[in-house]
Amino acid sequence: MKFDTLIRNGEVVTASDRFIGDVGIVAEKIVALGTTLPAENAGRVIDAKGKYVIPGGIDVHTHLDMPFGGTTSADDFESGTIAAAFGGTTSLIDFAIQYKGQTLRTAFDTWMKKAEAKAAIDYAFHCILTDLPDARLEEMNALVREGVTSFKLFMAYPGVFMVEDGLIFKAMSQTAQNGGLICMHAENGGAIDVIVRRALAEGKTAPKYHALTRPTTAEAEATARAIALAEMAGAAVYIVHLSCNDALEKVREARDRGIPAYAETCPQYLYLDDSLYDRPGFEGAKWVMTPPLRPKWHQEKLWEGLRRDHLQVVSTDHCPFCFKEQKEMGVGDFTKIPNGAPGIETRLMLLHEGVRKGRITLNRFVQLVSTAPAKMFGLYPRKGTIAVGSDADIVIFDPNKEVVLSAKTHHMKVDYNPFEGTRIVGAPSAVLVRGKPVIEGDKFVGRVGSGQFLKRETFVAQ
Amino acid sequence: MKFDTLIRNGEVVTASDRFIGDVGIVAEKIVALGTTLPAENAGRVIDAKGKYVIPGGIDVHTHLDMPFGGTTSADDFESGTIAAAFGGTTSLIDFAIQYKGQTLRTAFDTWMKKAEAKAAIDYAFHCILTDLPDARLEEMNALVREGVTSFKLFMAYPGVFMVEDGLIFKAMSQTAQNGGLICMHAENGGAIDVIVRRALAEGKTAPKYHALTRPTTAEAEATARAIALAEMAGAAVYIVHLSCNDALEKVREARDRGIPAYAETCPQYLYLDDSLYDRPGFEGAKWVMTPPLRPKWHQEKLWEGLRRDHLQVVSTDHCPFCFKEQKEMGVGDFTKIPNGAPGIETRLMLLHEGVRKGRITLNRFVQLVSTAPAKMFGLYPRKGTIAVGSDADIVIFDPNKEVVLSAKTHHMKVDYNPFEGTRIVGAPSAVLVRGKPVIEGDKFVGRVGSGQFLKRETFVAQ
Amino acid sequence: MKFDTLIRNGEVVTASDRFIGDVGIVAEKIVALGTTLPAENAGRVIDAKGKYVIPGGIDVHTHLDMPFGGTTSADDFESGTIAAAFGGTTSLIDFAIQYKGQTLRTAFDTWMKKAEAKAAIDYAFHCILTDLPDARLEEMNALVREGVTSFKLFMAYPGVFMVEDGLIFKAMSQTAQNGGLICMHAENGGAIDVIVRRALAEGKTAPKYHALTRPTTAEAEATARAIALAEMAGAAVYIVHLSCNDALEKVREARDRGIPAYAETCPQYLYLDDSLYDRPGFEGAKWVMTPPLRPKWHQEKLWEGLRRDHLQVVSTDHCPFCFKEQKEMGVGDFTKIPNGAPGIETRLMLLHEGVRKGRITLNRFVQLVSTAPAKMFGLYPRKGTIAVGSDADIVIFDPNKEVVLSAKTHHMKVDYNPFEGTRIVGAPSAVLVRGKPVIEGDKFVGRVGSGQFLKRETFVAQ
Amino acid sequence: MKFDTLIRNGEVVTASDRFIGDVGIVAEKIVALGTTLPAENAGRVIDAKGKYVIPGGIDVHTHLDMPFGGTTSADDFESGTIAAAFGGTTSLIDFAIQYKGQTLRTAFDTWMKKAEAKAAIDYAFHCILTDLPDARLEEMNALVREGVTSFKLFMAYPGVFMVEDGLIFKAMSQTAQNGGLICMHAENGGAIDVIVRRALAEGKTAPKYHALTRPTTAEAEATARAIALAEMAGAAVYIVHLSCNDALEKVREARDRGIPAYAETCPQYLYLDDSLYDRPGFEGAKWVMTPPLRPKWHQEKLWEGLRRDHLQVVSTDHCPFCFKEQKEMGVGDFTKIPNGAPGIETRLMLLHEGVRKGRITLNRFVQLVSTAPAKMFGLYPRKGTIAVGSDADIVIFDPNKEVVLSAKTHHMKVDYNPFEGTRIVGAPSAVLVRGKPVIEGDKFVGRVGSGQFLKRETFVAQ
Repeated sequence: MKFDTLIRNGEVVTASDRFIGDVGIVAEKIVALGTTLPAENAGRVIDAKGKYVIPGGIDVHTHLDMPFGGTTSADDFESGTIAAAFGGTTSLIDFAIQYKGQTLRTAFDTWMKKAEAKAAIDYAFHCILTDLPDARLEEMNALVREGVTSFKLFMAYPGVFMVEDGLIFKAMSQTAQNGGLICMHAENGGAIDVIVRRALAEGKTAPKYHALTRPTTAEAEATARAIALAEMAGAAVYIVHLSCNDALEKVREARDRGIPAYAETCPQYLYLDDSLYDRPGFEGAKWVMTPPLRPKWHQEKLWEGLRRDHLQVVSTDHCPFCFKEQKEMGVGDFTKIPNGAPGIETRLMLLHEGVRKGRITLNRFVQLVSTAPAKMFGLYPRKGTIAVGSDADIVIFDPNKEVVLSAKTHHMKVDYNPFEGTRIVGAPSAVLVRGKPVIEGDKFVGRVGSGQFLKRETFVAQ
Repeated sequence: MKFDTLIRNGEVVTASDRFIGDVGIVAEKIVALGTTLPAENAGRVIDAKGKYVIPGGIDVHTHLDMPFGGTTSADDFESGTIAAAFGGTTSLIDFAIQYKGQTLRTAFDTWMKKAEAKAAIDYAFHCILTDLPDARLEEMNALVREGVTSFKLFMAYPGVFMVEDGLIFKAMSQTAQNGGLICMHAENGGAIDVIVRRALAEGKTAPKYHALTRPTTAEAEATARAIALAEMAGAAVYIVHLSCNDALEKVREARDRGIPAYAETCPQYLYLDDSLYDRPGFEGAKWVMTPPLRPKWHQEKLWEGLRRDHLQVVSTDHCPFCFKEQKEMGVGDFTKIPNGAPGIETRLMLLHEGVRKGRITLNRFVQLVSTAPAKMFGLYPRKGTIAVGSDADIVIFDPNKEVVLSAKTHHMKVDYNPFEGTRIVGAPSAVLVRGKPVIEGDKFVGRVGSGQFLKRETFVAQ
Repeated sequence: MKFDTLIRNGEVVTASDRFIGDVGIVAEKIVALGTTLPAENAGRVIDAKGKYVIPGGIDVHTHLDMPFGGTTSADDFESGTIAAAFGGTTSLIDFAIQYKGQTLRTAFDTWMKKAEAKAAIDYAFHCILTDLPDARLEEMNALVREGVTSFKLFMAYPGVFMVEDGLIFKAMSQTAQNGGLICMHAENGGAIDVIVRRALAEGKTAPKYHALTRPTTAEAEATARAIALAEMAGAAVYIVHLSCNDALEKVREARDRGIPAYAETCPQYLYLDDSLYDRPGFEGAKWVMTPPLRPKWHQEKLWEGLRRDHLQVVSTDHCPFCFKEQKEMGVGDFTKIPNGAPGIETRLMLLHEGVRKGRITLNRFVQLVSTAPAKMFGLYPRKGTIAVGSDADIVIFDPNKEVVLSAKTHHMKVDYNPFEGTRIVGAPSAVLVRGKPVIEGDKFVGRVGSGQFLKRETFVAQ
Repeated sequence: MKFDTLIRNGEVVTASDRFIGDVGIVAEKIVALGTTLPAENAGRVIDAKGKYVIPGGIDVHTHLDMPFGGTTSADDFESGTIAAAFGGTTSLIDFAIQYKGQTLRTAFDTWMKKAEAKAAIDYAFHCILTDLPDARLEEMNALVREGVTSFKLFMAYPGVFMVEDGLIFKAMSQTAQNGGLICMHAENGGAIDVIVRRALAEGKTAPKYHALTRPTTAEAEATARAIALAEMAGAAVYIVHLSCNDALEKVREARDRGIPAYAETCPQYLYLDDSLYDRPGFEGAKWVMTPPLRPKWHQEKLWEGLRRDHLQVVSTDHCPFCFKEQKEMGVGDFTKIPNGAPGIETRLMLLHEGVRKGRITLNRFVQLVSTAPAKMFGLYPRKGTIAVGSDADIVIFDPNKEVVLSAKTHHMKVDYNPFEGTRIVGAPSAVLVRGKPVIEGDKFVGRVGSGQFLKRETFVAQ
């Protein structure tokens, strides 16, 4: 037994197990786990003593190089994937947008081009659908065959991305047959639009009105509706960026009845609350994202949801816009503020805080950031675990490393950090993608363009 | 004390009380209740011994003289109100339809004309909204001031009556301020439309596919959505013709949280089930109504809902189309069958069966068919009870009278009866509207055109 | 038509109706209601203009002349019924206690003797059961035949009143057959006893520990258990003095399933909260009652329960002990404080505040304090309404009369008032029992001993 | 790398992962997992190609050599553990019974003696408590320190095992401090006892009355009560042998609120239903167990509970009594039938059928029969997984092996099999305990007395 790389003496952690031992890697794969694997001939030996050895994080909700609201998200596939790697994320799933009238293939090709020469970690795509005449249903099947096995729909943003219930039902019915999975942005766009226009008419233009015009009931309603439509279509549904208890209750109620409904939340909803919108001047714009931050009490409910598997995944909804020039487009009109915030780099660190605070176990942490996303989106067992035969996407996570989150030190190409100044204990000290080091300490040692497109398997109910 | 009419020795029943006694009427009003009111000088004495003396029924959901699906409902305000009177209903609320682009006033005026010379009982209107530009919001206020204090919206029938969530929210917000109440046809029209078109494409054209293409989940979803929109708008909402347990649970859940959500069901959903669609040939078309009849087990749940006040009202959704020529328009294509069935004449008799079977109390019966509708729709205390000062709309109800429901004997102008052959024990033996007899035994003794328009009060949460 | 008493021009209010009119009384009964009943020959005319004319209150939970905790409740049937009358209560149901080994008849006879020469209003009894060998089951039937048609059991107070689940189930099974109804004191006495002993062992002896040792979960658990036992026995159950949202949810959940579960709450739980236990010194003992006062947020939930009929009755649990000498028995040991507080006089006034604040309608107020208790406990239609043929138990309630609740002015024989200093608008200005005035303004004009024992009908599901 | 035993080419399955690979064992431990571990010097090589390699089953609910109902369970620690091994179970937790007045230590010592010379697999004990004066609370702590970290209480069997709520609360409070866990037999013994005695009095003596006298409501009530008591005590609780949907809903509702409530079910409740009690003659006695078998529809709900983690563990409640002579003690009086049935040998096979039928995943199967029980009861990571460093308790499970369950072939010392004649596909082909083969094909190759007592860790919330 000769390993290209041997990681020694770390505490290997999977979604279910923990043990002190070694991980042997040959080429891109994990080939052995053991108490004392032979180090003699190993090409590289990494000492992981006192550290966790966990599967690389999988971020299933990012928006790199995305045109939105008259500008483009600040990270492209180069800066974005490098920042992801620094944070211990080794695969991501971004969104290829089909604009009205375009073929789905056009969307896919466009985004493949954005990624291919730039990505430093592996990547895959969901496809955002904005129109779906019957003639296009076969295109969905074709995309599934290409490994784009999930589709995102919006119940919000009328006139931009919003689609009506008939289209949703049609798309869901199609995935029930072709093995795809519908990801849903669940907010009642019709009602919100009326509230927003009323606010503007009343001269309410500050950033905080973004939050005040998007009630949790609008999210809960759409969540329940998405699930009902899926139930009628005989399909599963995955709710993205669930932000509040009201919506969580709808997911839980459905799951309790055995319905294949799933949901992710994001670190911002677990840690930040709507009091940030009261920051002086225009600063609240930093947290203008959709759904908006909610009152603090929701956070405990979301953690409970993560603990009890009412929520299955933690993603980032990384959608960065600089405060200068980009966010500032909305001075005087909150609807002009590009929606979104950066987070691709900080997900694992922030969620690990939940382990430290006793909110979730270390196994559950690994499951939420890596194993469950991999299983949900057709990447498992290639990705998402430390197991014999899996890709050697590995994070050496130092539970004692202290970090202060800050725009001064982060690697995302955005001029502020929504968690600015937050002290964290526990961070990656090294990261491997398919056996190759990409992060060593504070240095990126990978290669731009080395990331591979991941052709995903069809959906299997979890 | 001198009475124009004295009803003696009956068992007076209200929503709360029961006693043996007399009812004294002067002009159009009840002026006295007593154990032995003086009969000497009474203009007319009606002996009600052994009979119930109950307030006249109020049917808040009828469609008389309504153009729909390429034809017109078979009863106009003459035949319809006479049939209503035979069944013990002394007031009704019909629907004035605003077609796209019309003013609300046009709708109101049109329906007033249909009714005024013909109605034999008192009547009022809800206004159906199909478009609602901001400019029209003031028209809602005006109509409320005229006594049209409720508005109906459709979440089904895309391209005809269906409106989108933003409009619903806007209308609800308006009623929260002007004292109106939104009545909602709650079915997810978008999803249903896809299912219907798919069925037709598969050659499924028989009447039964009307039911099979309108799942209970589509009704439950829309019910929940209507309530959520009302909650956001700070408004009450009234769900019409609730047909199934799934939707009932949504109403109950909201009410349990203190939300002002209300719902009616109809006798057809309490007694008839979807096995009728399996009748040979085209006969199933008789029961093509929306929502469709449901599996039998829902009935017990609806009765339970009536008992526990999760449902507050029983109306008819009387919308009659003859089997010949009208229903037959849909031979070969169930979507062409005019939706609806007759029932305006049989509501009290059918619901009274629930008293006989021990499902509801006699007080609750009175409340469901008269008092609650009156209170819900701004007619109380003028209508809806036997109390001093109220209109003398009175039914002498003989609990022992045997009736067989049949198109041969009913007074509705429709060539079939959905309850054909059903034996009933308990029926009106005399009916008074504002002190004047309109029914005596099997004879109509009222006068066409004597019915008055009822200007209703604004909504008060019940 | 000649009346012994005619009440003119009042606003008559029942559980369902409201109208301005007159009430004519002959002997003990209401014989007529009307707009302008003839006053000429009336024996007495009461002008009720500007006032409500409502049915006399029925308090179904009082403890007069009751030995408890080494002392006796401070009001006997004389002072207690007079105080009740002042507050607009014209009938009460007290508790006859069967001590272990006694026959039920002994209990009944004992309490009949306490009441008969003293009561100034009408009265009935529940029978408290403390043991129930099979031989005694027939005694239950006998008592039901005598008009004692309800039985109270305790799930708390081990060693005193507490009975085990087998006995409860047996008693419930018996009522399912004999028409009785089980009233339940629902708290888990076993757990509470351990908590109490632990508190004492830790030197926690102040009054506030009474509240801290009786968690709401203990009440909710027992409530759910009582309902489950009733469900198994095929019987109804009535939960007494429900104090908290946790227990309310159990009742609601059962009712939503159609189970005949009922509950009362009391004014103290609607207005007072556990912050009173923090009063300096021993003063908190004034509010040592069981269940104890709860945190303030429960109150809104209880009002919601009253609105939605999840709670059906408001009683007082009047169980008065003087602060001096009686409450003081528990200085240094909260378990020695006699449990209970006075309230028989203030129920209607306090609940009417809920009408003023828009929490409940005037009809619901009448239903909660009079009609519902009468129907629940077999007194209707003799008691509980203003209807032709009913007893003329009538309260002339002045909605504008201002009162300050105080021990200085109340008529209960207890040296403090739990609502001391509370300003109230709306109070009885006159009270009649069976046609005879007992209260006129601030004077008792009735007769001690004139109260009659009420033989109650068997239970009918409401 | 030199292995004492090398298992090659199997499909290793854990609670989270699946991969084809090898398992290397040195002494009693798993020391390596890999794609191609070196076989050269291995002491023994087991070819697992085409088979699953799963962690040994852990049965946390068995009753070996237990005196009960005037007889003793038919398997002792020799026959019972051998049968367990045949079925792929390599550790069990039995119950040491403290009889009233005994010390807990006496119970523990007595059961240690029963097991030590006989057990062929590893074993541990829960301690059944029947009395618990305050003086004995310290004994609980002592037992926890000895590795008996769970205690079982009974809410049923009055006069035998049943304890009252105060004792339960006290015991739970103690475990909240000492790291123990309360296991609860949840049925309302008080009510059941009345129903049973009534049935006997009515001459209902056949086996089926065992089921008819133990309603699901009695189980649900006690389940809810146990959870409420645990909530008040700040403790976790584990419900044993949950048999019905009613009880499941109580567990689920508590878990949804974040309460640490757990439950197991057993294969008999997943596959067998109450129609078996209708077998002719006395045969129904074979399935007289507590709780009894339930109507068939509950099974789907229990599977759903297993899928969604509302139920965490599958155990057997193995409590075998021969039909001849033992079960027959209850001819003419169902209460004399010893309660219980055999199952220790068939658990894994039966649950694996759930994998074949698509009810649960293979990972979930492993979790339910091994990993979750180990984590719940302080045996993990020593037991319950295939991971580096864990005990080499391994089952080579052949997913294609066909078996017909039958008393003719099973190894339990009982003359009937409750699943007689059931065809199964998938069964163990070899079993190792701490690296030593105990089962090879159809042969027991282990050693009586080689089983070790497992000193368990304290409870950690899962």
